[in-house]
Amino acid sequence: MNKIIVVGAVAGGATVASQIRRLDQESEIIVFEKDRDMSFANCALPYYLGNVVDSRDKILEATPEMFYEKKQITVKPYHEVTAINDTHKSITVYDRQSKQSFEETYDTLILSPGCSANSLNLDSDITFTLRNMEDTDAIESFIKHRKVSNALIIGAGYIGLEILDNLYESGISPTLIHRSTHINKLMDSDMNQPIIEEMQKRQIPFRLNEEVEKVIGNEVHFKSGTVEHFDLIIEGIGVKPNSDFIKTSNIKLDARGYIPVNDCFETNIPNIYALGDIINAHYRHVDLEAHVPLAWGAHRGASIIAEQLAGNDSIKFKGYLGANIVKFFDYTFASVGVSPQELMHFDYEVVETKQGEHAGYYPGNSPLHLRVYFDNTNRRIIRAAAVGKKGADKRIDVLSMAMMHRLTIDELTEFEVAYAPPYSRPKDIINMIGYKARNK
Amino acid sequence: MNKIIVVGAVAGGATVASQIRRLDQESEIIVFEKDRDMSFANCALPYYLGNVVDSRDKILEATPEMFYEKKQITVKPYHEVTAINDTHKSITVYDRQSKQSFEETYDTLILSPGCSANSLNLDSDITFTLRNMEDTDAIESFIKHRKVSNALIIGAGYIGLEILDNLYESGISPTLIHRSTHINKLMDSDMNQPIIEEMQKRQIPFRLNEEVEKVIGNEVHFKSGTVEHFDLIIEGIGVKPNSDFIKTSNIKLDARGYIPVNDCFETNIPNIYALGDIINAHYRHVDLEAHVPLAWGAHRGASIIAEQLAGNDSIKFKGYLGANIVKFFDYTFASVGVSPQELMHFDYEVVETKQGEHAGYYPGNSPLHLRVYFDNTNRRIIRAAAVGKKGADKRIDVLSMAMMHRLTIDELTEFEVAYAPPYSRPKDIINMIGYKARNK
Repeated sequence: MNKIIVVGAVAGGATVASQIRRLDQESEIIVFEKDRDMSFANCALPYYLGNVVDSRDKILEATPEMFYEKKQITVKPYHEVTAINDTHKSITVYDRQSKQSFEETYDTLILSPGCSANSLNLDSDITFTLRNMEDTDAIESFIKHRKVSNALIIGAGYIGLEILDNLYESGISPTLIHRSTHINKLMDSDMNQPIIEEMQKRQIPFRLNEEVEKVIGNEVHFKSGTVEHFDLIIEGIGVKPNSDFIKTSNIKLDARGYIPVNDCFETNIPNIYALGDIINAHYRHVDLEAHVPLAWGAHRGASIIAEQLAGNDSIKFKGYLGANIVKFFDYTFASVGVSPQELMHFDYEVVETKQGEHAGYYPGNSPLHLRVYFDNTNRRIIRAAAVGKKGADKRIDVLSMAMMHRLTIDELTEFEVAYAPPYSRPKDIINMIGYKARNK
Repeated sequence: MNKIIVVGAVAGGATVASQIRRLDQESEIIVFEKDRDMSFANCALPYYLGNVVDSRDKILEATPEMFYEKKQITVKPYHEVTAINDTHKSITVYDRQSKQSFEETYDTLILSPGCSANSLNLDSDITFTLRNMEDTDAIESFIKHRKVSNALIIGAGYIGLEILDNLYESGISPTLIHRSTHINKLMDSDMNQPIIEEMQKRQIPFRLNEEVEKVIGNEVHFKSGTVEHFDLIIEGIGVKPNSDFIKTSNIKLDARGYIPVNDCFETNIPNIYALGDIINAHYRHVDLEAHVPLAWGAHRGASIIAEQLAGNDSIKFKGYLGANIVKFFDYTFASVGVSPQELMHFDYEVVETKQGEHAGYYPGNSPLHLRVYFDNTNRRIIRAAAVGKKGADKRIDVLSMAMMHRLTIDELTEFEVAYAPPYSRPKDIINMIGYKARNK
């Protein structure tokens, strides 16, 4: 009997185990998860913290008991895989509760260990990171018992922004600092202006080029010399791959500690696959490596690995487009394609427009800023970004579908929008980008 | 000097004249419009009637004076073209104000006469159709002077539905009748159920398989035997092509009176083009004739004709996808591809799903019903329909972009959605359709 071991039981790990079972009722499937919870909805955590999501049950999608009963998949929480011996096809597992290590053999090994939150290690008992349900519970309990009225958020990445939005809406006064001027870095820098405006409108203090030097009790000393008091500090300063345990093996890691995979999600070692935030793959629409640690990719990887293991090797991963989206108060920030930082690899042109999202005479209209980058050498779209109160998600999803087909900027004129006044314009904003490109 | 005559000054005619001028500053351009107004936003009329659109100026996009001043385009309202002599390259024009006819020569003739509203000719002074600004003004004035409190709407096509929604919201009690059971016929019959429910919820009377037999004053006698009193009747029972004047020429019309055009919007006669609701073309994604009398196609035609006349004949029309959308109270009904009636030309399969539009735990979620039809012989998508309170427009626009590339149902698994809880799911509904198709 085939024995499949999965490392990690969140989006990638739990989904790949389920998908394998769907196609294969025979193999033994064991999932080791170093933390307390399996299969929670990470993307929901900021919303749970802000009471926008009101029930824990809606976020904890499955338990080990449920998984075993329904799918005969064994999930072992508090079990951390600490080493891989790929020559002997075995792993070392540390049981964090009994504090014992043991060896486990495998026929197929699937790695979905994810990432951990970076931390400034401020030596402060009011400071938290937010990466899993345990973190969320700790913050929630702290807010409840300490009567938190204000909070410092360090880092204006998408997690920091979502936390700020949610804390504010739940009645806690947030302050935001960011160590550079480049916040929300998947978005074009100048298109982030509404983030600043949304905070100003609500009189939310924020400082760019600011850092924390030390925290003494509730007293926070900043690099700028400012000293302020906060009840709570949340760090949202990026993540690092959980790949230390892989370094004992022959599995190749890239310079930053991520695992390169091929179009079947295989590592360099036969019978060892990887998926989720830990992998490094490639873009679909351009010839460039891509690291896209988001939920869609984890689910796609789970499906493709399951098909591979079931012998259906015609289904391959064709690469990422990097579609991403974040809500911040009334605005949506969405983009697809290479990141602003990766544009330097291309000889590109830009076409943009900022106009009413739907017919001008229909109420509730608001400006949508859409910018599309194309490669000068072949006129194919390499990146698109949209910011507005309405319709940004739709335009980026349409452009994601376009880029899946390596559409040129000119072909955007041919997009047939479903038009009625509440939804769009007879020449949609996407068509306008194509028409404007005629002169470039 | 080249002389270009355009017949019709609404969406197709006014736009083609403008687009030509953009590329050609030399030619003389004259537009004849049989009615009072040029370049109004037809799709806005129901919303103007319901006071959702509050200002006339927002709907009347241009006047002949403005057009001449800005673009040196002559627009002649109340000038009806009554005959075409394509051998001599001339037309007969009837001036409805002076009641005189005259001949006018052309080098290039562009036909955009549109359609007229069908009418039951009920011999009743409380009965109106809604096709242009004059109709709208007449209804508005009637409502104001007659203190209209209730209205009968005949026909549950998209115009009838939009009028009903708007009259209701403006405080007039509507009643709807439809002569068959198949309302809103671009949508799958069973997916129209929310139309019925939205009316029931608001206690709006409606009767299917019902017709008007006669109207005496305010007394309406129905086929069912019912007699009711109404202050106002609006007919929304389809349209007929304004092509009688073309029958004097050698321009080919199809059996229903529409003009077949090629991929340059040329008729069968050299130097005579046609666009807008009057034309008959072909689908882009399947080998079938298509009549899609909607705004997007008129604008696309205008652009392509202008490029053709400017000598840029590389830009061709690749066909319609038939994308359409209508709002009815809280619901959106959208579809793309062949119509339900045209499905009989294919050997097809159906995949559908009805699930929360975005992440289940995020508030404001509502079910979206998405159905996709694919051709069994090549698995390409031939039609998609979506109904829901939120997200139907987005999914149909994404699928329109997919069908532009003749996507197979299976490739929908590869669509990379921009995911965050307020917008979608890590596996979007579109991905789910692709995954569900694996077993078909």
